[in-house]
Amino acid sequence: MVPDARALTVQTDALCALARWCAGRGWVPATSGNFSVKDAATERIFISRSGLDKGQITPADLLELDVTGNLLHGDGRPSAETGLHLVIYRDRPKVHAIAHVHTIWNTLLSARCAAAGAVEMEGYELLKALSGVTTHAYRECVPVIANTQDYAALAQELTGVLKQNPAVHGVLLSGHGLYTWGTSVAEARRHLEALEFLFEVEGRRITSEG
Amino acid sequence: MVPDARALTVQTDALCALARWCAGRGWVPATSGNFSVKDAATERIFISRSGLDKGQITPADLLELDVTGNLLHGDGRPSAETGLHLVIYRDRPKVHAIAHVHTIWNTLLSARCAAAGAVEMEGYELLKALSGVTTHAYRECVPVIANTQDYAALAQELTGVLKQNPAVHGVLLSGHGLYTWGTSVAEARRHLEALEFLFEVEGRRITSEG
Amino acid sequence: MVPDARALTVQTDALCALARWCAGRGWVPATSGNFSVKDAATERIFISRSGLDKGQITPADLLELDVTGNLLHGDGRPSAETGLHLVIYRDRPKVHAIAHVHTIWNTLLSARCAAAGAVEMEGYELLKALSGVTTHAYRECVPVIANTQDYAALAQELTGVLKQNPAVHGVLLSGHGLYTWGTSVAEARRHLEALEFLFEVEGRRITSEG
Amino acid sequence: MVPDARALTVQTDALCALARWCAGRGWVPATSGNFSVKDAATERIFISRSGLDKGQITPADLLELDVTGNLLHGDGRPSAETGLHLVIYRDRPKVHAIAHVHTIWNTLLSARCAAAGAVEMEGYELLKALSGVTTHAYRECVPVIANTQDYAALAQELTGVLKQNPAVHGVLLSGHGLYTWGTSVAEARRHLEALEFLFEVEGRRITSEG
Repeated sequence: MVPDARALTVQTDALCALARWCAGRGWVPATSGNFSVKDAATERIFISRSGLDKGQITPADLLELDVTGNLLHGDGRPSAETGLHLVIYRDRPKVHAIAHVHTIWNTLLSARCAAAGAVEMEGYELLKALSGVTTHAYRECVPVIANTQDYAALAQELTGVLKQNPAVHGVLLSGHGLYTWGTSVAEARRHLEALEFLFEVEGRRITSEG
Repeated sequence: MVPDARALTVQTDALCALARWCAGRGWVPATSGNFSVKDAATERIFISRSGLDKGQITPADLLELDVTGNLLHGDGRPSAETGLHLVIYRDRPKVHAIAHVHTIWNTLLSARCAAAGAVEMEGYELLKALSGVTTHAYRECVPVIANTQDYAALAQELTGVLKQNPAVHGVLLSGHGLYTWGTSVAEARRHLEALEFLFEVEGRRITSEG
Repeated sequence: MVPDARALTVQTDALCALARWCAGRGWVPATSGNFSVKDAATERIFISRSGLDKGQITPADLLELDVTGNLLHGDGRPSAETGLHLVIYRDRPKVHAIAHVHTIWNTLLSARCAAAGAVEMEGYELLKALSGVTTHAYRECVPVIANTQDYAALAQELTGVLKQNPAVHGVLLSGHGLYTWGTSVAEARRHLEALEFLFEVEGRRITSEG
Repeated sequence: MVPDARALTVQTDALCALARWCAGRGWVPATSGNFSVKDAATERIFISRSGLDKGQITPADLLELDVTGNLLHGDGRPSAETGLHLVIYRDRPKVHAIAHVHTIWNTLLSARCAAAGAVEMEGYELLKALSGVTTHAYRECVPVIANTQDYAALAQELTGVLKQNPAVHGVLLSGHGLYTWGTSVAEARRHLEALEFLFEVEGRRITSEG
């Protein structure tokens, strides 16, 4: 099957625009974070290479992988966290874009709520920006997985968390950052903006209450 | 009556410039927020279509409505909150521009002050940026309406709040955001900037005091 | 005496660049704030006109005044606070540029320290950015004047404060904002950046301690 | 030995780009901060001249020094803190770039932790952005040196601190700012972004706990 080159270009362009926008907001400091898109026609995955300043990223900095993570095209090393992207694409078949960012508020909240196992946010209008949510009278429980450098264990843990939480729009790693996703780059971006806005609101609310 | 095409262009251009400026400050995250202008000659309303990233908005993304909300021109769906714009234009005849934004501080303050029914701000020089206010020795009480997904009920509630508070420059929906307005886009923008500045000052003051 | 047209151009250009930079940081919200420069050769004063969005200011938006405040050239109304600029130029003969801004932290601190009559900052390296200060082991006491809409009384109060505090680099109006100055636009900007940085540091320090 | 002109150009360009980026974030207010790079071939040091707004810096604003600090080329005065750069280059032979910034959070934290003698950060994924750190289960102890205007004494103090802390990626001066470095401008920037991110996270965590 021949992929639709133009649609693919648009998606990789949009993905890089999202990554550069995140860099401008300080959400991927010190070459952290990673971003990927899955082509609908070929199921190939395009992911940012490791060690890159995301403020400068262009489609030439993406690596092309198959769904099991084999490198098909591109210069550079896939991020050590590529396996987490593969788990999400495998277990959420409708997902075609993933963003992973390190922000002040997701770092603070994920560390603070690690023992509780989730960051809970309820009653905010902006929850409606999450796909399938139609009212503010909703509680989003973003699971917090304990951070580890054992990526195989992390992939297994993430598999379990996705299975147990079919409705979640993102997962946090404690003291590390957020993974979120969507059926398109636009939806992944909407989820990212909404969750990070809510993390800051909730983080400020909780810390002001001591 | 033929509308003044150039004046109209300037107003829709200014409205879109305001929306893009808000996007740059993070005040309309995740395609939230909406903006409208009412043409003085024709009484037609131009409002941002639903689901749009406001960072990219141009006049082509505005829908043209009559004063009762019928879609006259434009591609896309009016926001579910269009009815609130119509109430404001109906009950504040001098108003020609409306902005609705979701910010960190209006979300925090509106949720915190929902039970009290208003956010009160007093003694700040910047209150003088609000039309008709000539001294800092003034108390602006921004009403807080409980958020709901029942937009007909919300429109009715807003009608009552506008009637009971003839001097207010804006209305908050709890955990949701701010509506503010002006006789022109420039005045709506001035009210928006002033209220959001004061929300942040007041929010920081209150939360630092526990 | 014929003024040096080029030097004057550079100063009014630099003044407008400073005003636009302040607008970008949110320091002159809702058309607040004002900026002026005094030409060394002619002693004429060029000041931003009232009611202007400082994000768009150019030298054409400046009004030319003599040292007693008479309008010589320019379209628009001088700000009500022009008299305060005139007092500073009169009582600080070396001053050739003045900036007045409304920021979150100068509003919070000036309100909080109004009763004490001054914001005191000590021990910070950045104090050395203030003209004449050569060590961090220095205490800058920025006087806080109670805000009022009686500008004649305010001018008189400012006259007294400048006389009693010959070494200060700025004056705060409570719940209103900062006036700071320098022998050139560059020095006024350096004082502005330094004082606002220190206000934020001190504001965060004080409020985190309850 | 003839230096590689192109490689040198790239490094001084990259250094100035870093300085301008810091200016945009408010990390070098009021002409504070300084930046340098050491040419690998000639061991010559290129450092920002004193009193410069870093938002405008270009390679023409760099002074060329030998390793003992003698001025070889360039207009302007070396910063009083040049001696600290020379100590770092002398005692860390692999270092080829140094950044010194004044930020809100490094000022707050360095003052708060001065008595303890170090800012300790542990358990964050972003620690892995520091060269040689391979796990979040790591504690970075950034030494805090008491600030002084006796630069000879400060150079001697820094010499001792570098000797006693062979693994550190930066040093704080209390109430003053951060020095950090790398084998290249890119690595110095990565360390700078990571440390400042962690200072903000840690500063917010500590202050919210009272």
